[in-house]
Amino acid sequence: MVNKLSRKLLDPLVEQPLDIQGFEQPRALLNRIPEDLTPLLDLVQRPVVSATQFNRQQLLQLARLASRYETQPQLTVRPLTGKIMISAFYEPSTRTRLSFESAWHRLGGDIMSITDPASTGIAKGESLHDIGEMLNHYGDLVVLRESNENAVYEMLETLRIPIVNGGNGTDEHPTQAMADIYALLKWRPALCDPEIDTGERIRLAIIGVPGQMRTVRSLLILMSQFAPAFEEVVIITDETSPFAEGQREELEKAGLRFRVTGDMNAELPTLDVVYINTIAWVGDDYKELGTRYRLDGSSPLKPGAVILHPLARGSELARELDTTAHNWYFAQARGAVFMRMALLSTILKTFA
Amino acid sequence: MVNKLSRKLLDPLVEQPLDIQGFEQPRALLNRIPEDLTPLLDLVQRPVVSATQFNRQQLLQLARLASRYETQPQLTVRPLTGKIMISAFYEPSTRTRLSFESAWHRLGGDIMSITDPASTGIAKGESLHDIGEMLNHYGDLVVLRESNENAVYEMLETLRIPIVNGGNGTDEHPTQAMADIYALLKWRPALCDPEIDTGERIRLAIIGVPGQMRTVRSLLILMSQFAPAFEEVVIITDETSPFAEGQREELEKAGLRFRVTGDMNAELPTLDVVYINTIAWVGDDYKELGTRYRLDGSSPLKPGAVILHPLARGSELARELDTTAHNWYFAQARGAVFMRMALLSTILKTFA
Amino acid sequence: MVNKLSRKLLDPLVEQPLDIQGFEQPRALLNRIPEDLTPLLDLVQRPVVSATQFNRQQLLQLARLASRYETQPQLTVRPLTGKIMISAFYEPSTRTRLSFESAWHRLGGDIMSITDPASTGIAKGESLHDIGEMLNHYGDLVVLRESNENAVYEMLETLRIPIVNGGNGTDEHPTQAMADIYALLKWRPALCDPEIDTGERIRLAIIGVPGQMRTVRSLLILMSQFAPAFEEVVIITDETSPFAEGQREELEKAGLRFRVTGDMNAELPTLDVVYINTIAWVGDDYKELGTRYRLDGSSPLKPGAVILHPLARGSELARELDTTAHNWYFAQARGAVFMRMALLSTILKTFA
Repeated sequence: MVNKLSRKLLDPLVEQPLDIQGFEQPRALLNRIPEDLTPLLDLVQRPVVSATQFNRQQLLQLARLASRYETQPQLTVRPLTGKIMISAFYEPSTRTRLSFESAWHRLGGDIMSITDPASTGIAKGESLHDIGEMLNHYGDLVVLRESNENAVYEMLETLRIPIVNGGNGTDEHPTQAMADIYALLKWRPALCDPEIDTGERIRLAIIGVPGQMRTVRSLLILMSQFAPAFEEVVIITDETSPFAEGQREELEKAGLRFRVTGDMNAELPTLDVVYINTIAWVGDDYKELGTRYRLDGSSPLKPGAVILHPLARGSELARELDTTAHNWYFAQARGAVFMRMALLSTILKTFA
Repeated sequence: MVNKLSRKLLDPLVEQPLDIQGFEQPRALLNRIPEDLTPLLDLVQRPVVSATQFNRQQLLQLARLASRYETQPQLTVRPLTGKIMISAFYEPSTRTRLSFESAWHRLGGDIMSITDPASTGIAKGESLHDIGEMLNHYGDLVVLRESNENAVYEMLETLRIPIVNGGNGTDEHPTQAMADIYALLKWRPALCDPEIDTGERIRLAIIGVPGQMRTVRSLLILMSQFAPAFEEVVIITDETSPFAEGQREELEKAGLRFRVTGDMNAELPTLDVVYINTIAWVGDDYKELGTRYRLDGSSPLKPGAVILHPLARGSELARELDTTAHNWYFAQARGAVFMRMALLSTILKTFA
Repeated sequence: MVNKLSRKLLDPLVEQPLDIQGFEQPRALLNRIPEDLTPLLDLVQRPVVSATQFNRQQLLQLARLASRYETQPQLTVRPLTGKIMISAFYEPSTRTRLSFESAWHRLGGDIMSITDPASTGIAKGESLHDIGEMLNHYGDLVVLRESNENAVYEMLETLRIPIVNGGNGTDEHPTQAMADIYALLKWRPALCDPEIDTGERIRLAIIGVPGQMRTVRSLLILMSQFAPAFEEVVIITDETSPFAEGQREELEKAGLRFRVTGDMNAELPTLDVVYINTIAWVGDDYKELGTRYRLDGSSPLKPGAVILHPLARGSELARELDTTAHNWYFAQARGAVFMRMALLSTILKTFA
């Protein structure tokens, strides 16, 4: 048995050479954004269902707050002590659930989880209206993940406590998009600036299907608040109609410039950021789309370019990239907890 | 996507016109009951299995304590900090589980949940005696829901920490009954008075089957402690033998006056309180009884009459009643958390 | 219903005549071991995967710390406030999970549980490497139970926070073995002494299969740190090859003296300690081994001899022994929480 023990058991933990978790980055971001909590007051006690609810100033202040939590965790004084989150994940998820729960716990709050639909009132045929009314009395905030995209809206009709959408079917996943934006801003704090020189604009590609992936849908909505920062958004896909009806038009009106192509390798050498995702919620189950696209050590990535991925990943993102400077998806995952802390403490008005 | 956002997302939350959650009622109840904690001392560190364990004075003081928690939540100083509840729901339930867990969390305690029978020692064939012995060392109080009505008694043989019955098969559900009594007292504080004028007595109906519904069984036991307050208890059912053997005789000996009828609409115009429930635990599964009875906006309810329902509901209680003054079932559900806080803090002797 | 209420409901809880939970024993142990926290410093922030990681001095100091927690629970000041345990039990278990969670809660920490493999990223095909990387950001320590014995080693490759092995397939269960050693030391504190007189050495039997039972495997490794205390270790089994390859040789090199026999009753009259277990993890499921061995009231146990059992038990250990002085398995189960508190507070360096 002894021979199975790796040296991690016997030696002190070894530091990794590259800062792929982004431990060092959030301080620069914190310094870049002047503090102004006023825009956040509009989010106090409000439900968060869609990325469309956020404006640029709110996103910047949330990112600033997240970077404060990330750089100075010892300053957080458990402001949510005595507050209860109801963590209702009717659709399977560990990553998003733990990220929310970790954020809430780090703020000092208590949690009641509902992870098994079979153990819920739904098994007795209880309506979402009634479940919403019930939850009003049991907690201070609800996080809901449901494969039926209308569930969050139905529950909203009877809820008087805030609800946060943790992914509703194929529709939206706004807090994932917030984590993505935070990862972008940490990587390149200059994107925060109101005026961006043409030379500082970045080229970002999304390998995925905006019309069918909720993470991509929400991310594009938030990116439209930073439209001047993007020289071009390249959608890399095999689908002939990657957008939902009206989606592209709406985003273009907000200032994003799109190009759709199927040839990934032709684009990679000129891209600053590559966002890749293959999991989509189609009908009533997960489905993988665009699996012929794969990033690995031989991909012609531009030096300095970073990869983002909402995770969990399949074969589309090779592990050999993990130890390269292109890996910004670990920093993105790490930051998700702090961005959710920022959002949750804002909704509960305990950010100050 | 924007057009799906209801105005709740964009405007401040709108107050509802009627106080159907009973926010304003508990203060009157608090003032009506003189404080006397002595009767509660007999409940300290005791198991709570049956509604028969409670006397009138204990119920009044628990209701008083509940109303104090409901009206002055900010005064609760997390007296259960460091105490662990083991929340063992072997039978599916979200409503009761969350109500107990919310109560415990609001008192400051920690919780370990067992929601999946397949993940427990029971899967290895462990006896309830051994599970009880084990739990002694892991927590400070157990809440158990089990479809086998004897389980709570078996576990009791080895438990040295208190257990609270969260529903045992078709037998009893004492804390639901306590929540029901609290709802009644909040609605009409005069029911607390030792002497009640004939004119103040109320007429209450139960649409359900006392012999087969644990919530109804426990409620009638508690109501018998307030027998003078009830002019008559009308059992509305199609069943020819709605009582269990000896049940009616025992309750009548305690002072309740019963009448059984199948004609709901003939009774409604003269009833002050209508308690409706259709879910019964029969054999080893839920079953709906008496589904031909249905309350809706066209039901000939007496003005000022209130409806109680343990929830979750099916079609027997129309949602159109939710926004009427007959709706007291939301106040009942809300109060359940505070009544459980009162009971739990009493058992742990942290009520003072 | 009243007649079903046992006198436990109506009378104060009755003390049991024998101290079979060992309430009185840990004080003697606490006094026997001189405090020296230095050996524990090597465990700070380290993963705990195998019993081979511990030396005698560490085990003694952990036992001392456990006895301090057991005798002076009121002195614990919730040192893990703000720390998060991720309790990942992919293989069904209540006993071990609750024991870990209770230990963590009693130290003041928060917990996120993963009990349902179907609800995890594994369902999306996420690798253990990626899950490990993810957990780094969500908590401060992971407890993992997995039926695949390699899972803990795979996760270890990406984890930067400590992991504790809560049972990995047929391989090891080091914290159960630590609880077993604590039970032995509490029962006979003289076993702690560096020099043991021949007359004080004990005869211990294991009814079980060292090569196939992870609890037995880990226990024997820890016992080898106390080899001079054991006159002989008798393995009672029907299996012709009860040891794994090399296992017996390694343990004998460390000083344990073995004898293997199939005749339990011939051994019982001369044994001081009888450790019995029939559950083994074989292939991908639990299996009972050696079920023809059974201890009951008629077993020819030596006066003063004690029985240990990791629990949960089947028919191999009769309940009639529970109320005899041979019952030390309840004390063993009780002590497991305190031993885990000792280990967890050591890893988080909050023991002082």
